[in-house]
Amino acid sequence: MAAPQAAYEELLARWREVHVLDSCGGLLAWDQETFMPTGGGPHRAEQLALLAGLKHARQTDPVIGRLLSEAERGDVVADPDSAAAANVREIRRLFERSSRVPVSLQQELARTSSRAREAWKEARAASRFGTFRPWLERLLDLKRREAEAVGTGEDSYDALLDEYEPGATARQLTELFRPLRAAAVGLVRRIRDSGRTPDVGILRRSYPPQRQEAFARRALAAIGFDLDRGRLDTTAHPFCSQIGPGDVRLTTRYSPHDLALAFFGVLHEGGHGLYDQGLRPDAYGTPVGMPCSTGVHESQSLLWENHVGRSRGFWRHFYGAAREAFPEALGGVARDAFYAAINRVEPSLIRIEADEVTYDLHVFLRFDLERDLLSGALAPADLPAAWNERMHRDLGLRPPDDARGCLQDIHWSLGAIGYFPTYTLGHVYAAQLFHQAGRELGDLDAAFARGEFRPLREWLQERVHRDGARRPPAALVERITGKPPGPEDRIAHLERRYGELYGLSPGSAADEGGAPVS
Amino acid sequence: MAAPQAAYEELLARWREVHVLDSCGGLLAWDQETFMPTGGGPHRAEQLALLAGLKHARQTDPVIGRLLSEAERGDVVADPDSAAAANVREIRRLFERSSRVPVSLQQELARTSSRAREAWKEARAASRFGTFRPWLERLLDLKRREAEAVGTGEDSYDALLDEYEPGATARQLTELFRPLRAAAVGLVRRIRDSGRTPDVGILRRSYPPQRQEAFARRALAAIGFDLDRGRLDTTAHPFCSQIGPGDVRLTTRYSPHDLALAFFGVLHEGGHGLYDQGLRPDAYGTPVGMPCSTGVHESQSLLWENHVGRSRGFWRHFYGAAREAFPEALGGVARDAFYAAINRVEPSLIRIEADEVTYDLHVFLRFDLERDLLSGALAPADLPAAWNERMHRDLGLRPPDDARGCLQDIHWSLGAIGYFPTYTLGHVYAAQLFHQAGRELGDLDAAFARGEFRPLREWLQERVHRDGARRPPAALVERITGKPPGPEDRIAHLERRYGELYGLSPGSAADEGGAPVS
Repeated sequence: MAAPQAAYEELLARWREVHVLDSCGGLLAWDQETFMPTGGGPHRAEQLALLAGLKHARQTDPVIGRLLSEAERGDVVADPDSAAAANVREIRRLFERSSRVPVSLQQELARTSSRAREAWKEARAASRFGTFRPWLERLLDLKRREAEAVGTGEDSYDALLDEYEPGATARQLTELFRPLRAAAVGLVRRIRDSGRTPDVGILRRSYPPQRQEAFARRALAAIGFDLDRGRLDTTAHPFCSQIGPGDVRLTTRYSPHDLALAFFGVLHEGGHGLYDQGLRPDAYGTPVGMPCSTGVHESQSLLWENHVGRSRGFWRHFYGAAREAFPEALGGVARDAFYAAINRVEPSLIRIEADEVTYDLHVFLRFDLERDLLSGALAPADLPAAWNERMHRDLGLRPPDDARGCLQDIHWSLGAIGYFPTYTLGHVYAAQLFHQAGRELGDLDAAFARGEFRPLREWLQERVHRDGARRPPAALVERITGKPPGPEDRIAHLERRYGELYGLSPGSAADEGGAPVS
Repeated sequence: MAAPQAAYEELLARWREVHVLDSCGGLLAWDQETFMPTGGGPHRAEQLALLAGLKHARQTDPVIGRLLSEAERGDVVADPDSAAAANVREIRRLFERSSRVPVSLQQELARTSSRAREAWKEARAASRFGTFRPWLERLLDLKRREAEAVGTGEDSYDALLDEYEPGATARQLTELFRPLRAAAVGLVRRIRDSGRTPDVGILRRSYPPQRQEAFARRALAAIGFDLDRGRLDTTAHPFCSQIGPGDVRLTTRYSPHDLALAFFGVLHEGGHGLYDQGLRPDAYGTPVGMPCSTGVHESQSLLWENHVGRSRGFWRHFYGAAREAFPEALGGVARDAFYAAINRVEPSLIRIEADEVTYDLHVFLRFDLERDLLSGALAPADLPAAWNERMHRDLGLRPPDDARGCLQDIHWSLGAIGYFPTYTLGHVYAAQLFHQAGRELGDLDAAFARGEFRPLREWLQERVHRDGARRPPAALVERITGKPPGPEDRIAHLERRYGELYGLSPGSAADEGGAPVS
């Protein structure tokens, strides 16, 4: 039995190397968004393509296949619930998946998406979809070829979705999203009918970016993000990137007349960052030391942004500090008015600025459009019109330009098709996990009011982070909460928070169907 | 004859890939100095070690050897003065050199120097040599093994020096340095005896870093450094790094009470940057598109820093802008007094802050000590005492701590043994090139006074930059100036500039011998 054990150990060492290599590309991608001069674009694409090719070669090396077969034969996998068995299963899955994609395609995807990202930036800055369109066409073509090569799932979309959320299918998501859509649409209508319109003007006063940054760093420190093992920078499109254990980088963007944009953005990325910092550093590069899925990652960011950061308890603790940081803007504002403003529900154009209720509607729109783009039912040239039509139907708004329409998100320029639905999955997981945490830890809102975030962070670290990708996302959530992922806790959370804030009588969301909210 | 041509083209493509891979490590190293959080150190070392191993494997791939042999047989190299012949020669040289070094050693060097750099930062911040000593010992051991593996030159030192300055030997340098040392020592003594002591206090007034940065960027733009194809950031130890064509990054450091430190630092790194931006982008990664040598690189930085930036003409053009940028500090200061201050000659502790005359004495000290460290004649434990003793003997100063003594430079922590003498080679090349440029372009000082830097930049680009590593450094200099590198132009430059400034009667530097200056 020594051979399988030795094979397993070599397998882990090699797999770890794949991730170290991948993390070099991670830094290059981070740099492209933060500090790379514009002239560096073409060379960066070459660098990323080369690294993608090297990574692919190592990841699909036939030696990995042999080591897997060897490890699968022995005691290593005898206990299917052991970390070792999970590592072998997950490496097998990833090895099979990547082995089906030709290296040339992988490199072409890396090269094209790096160039497309620069084209997207330019297109978005000028609000000129035509600049981005040929790149989107090229990327869709490459992604179709990738899906065909992978060949799993019911259709092309499932094959791509699987990269972000192993095991998920468009069919399942459609099922899950139906009641969520109905709940959101219903809530938006009841909120509108409540006649209450919290004054969000108080969030649009003068908030000097330097003080915003200092305040955001204070909040990051309070929730436990370690800035000696991470960074916070400024980018057009906020994100979190784990370069390696001990190096987790967040970005945000500051507007001098908007407090919420950067602050909740930082809490969101900080939630991602806590996940990455909570992974087991000794298991880095092996499945049990890597994130479970994009949806689980989003659950951590959304949990800290919304369940924590938009709670009454959080601001009972932090509002004094906010007033000290921004005395001119908030000096005369009562805490309840501030709480109402940060939780104001109102259809808007930009996903990352959307409130907690309408957010999912932005996701559903993208989920539907990207499936049509991939299948060819929607031509890229028709995307702006389709986007604007759908925005009008679902949110009652018409984007005045493509920068605030179909060019607002970076994802498609990265070739990330199948990513958007994981935001809603994140909402679903977050609500379910937060509900369970409350059952086990007691009154969390009261803890936040005392500035106590550690119990929740440690609970998440122990239950979620430390497990890495040991099991598929749905199994992880079920193991922790005792039930498979479902819409109930999310809907209950929204009903509770917004029912209370807007004085709504309990409503049955299902009644509302999928009717437009405008 | 088709086969050799095809082999040559494949050779170039593969060699280019080696450089693209190397440039990924370049970005990682740049990031380590600029933005990496402290917690990222160990993972960064793993990343750099992995990339070093991959680079080494590609650079020493037997296929390269076969392609070289094939290319060497055909018409490709028929004209020994052609770019193709130069490419083949240089790739052969580098292939042979790297093939002699085991990949494990290369990786160990990358890993250890990345860790050593972090240890050095810590040691320097605390001025505690003991923190750095074990890393220096480890690095010296690895560098000895590298030199032994390379096995060229008269001794270990030559084998390492050759990496920075192909073809140079310690024996040649010792010859070249003797008259330079005598000239510097003599000048320092005559300057001291002149009784003139320009007031450098005017450079130590309040210079707000933000305005320093704006002023430095203005100067960079004026000399022609393109900030759309580059960056300027802040680091403890200033440097220039070419990430790729279109992406050349400079760093500097600002002191709120020192104008000269950052400004001349930026011009210095800007000179490096102009070289990198002047290389042929279409030949990137092949010898004719890469820098010739470290000495030639330093010649470009020192030329712009000293021959241009410390000239009377430069400040006839720029002094008005300087006064506008710093009205409180410079409002009442005459231009001549400012010129005298920025060219004040006075022994000092820190190499990168040294004046143009005493600078070489700092180099000679390091050149001698690093040879002794490598040979074992000097134990690392005895370095601080040896350093301080030599500083006292050559410059009349005793460092108050190791941070201002043997811990001041980053080089040894990078494993860069044999780098320091290239600074003096740079001075020598710079003086010779600048003298020749003046003969061909006419009165450069008058051109600078009119704000005209383009003729000089274009002359350098055409003569120096566009040739890349097409010929060895000495041959490049001889081709441009009509004579091999020698000390004469450098000594003549110093005599002219400082003779005029300090009102010295023409002196014979050789008389002064190597006597101490204190």
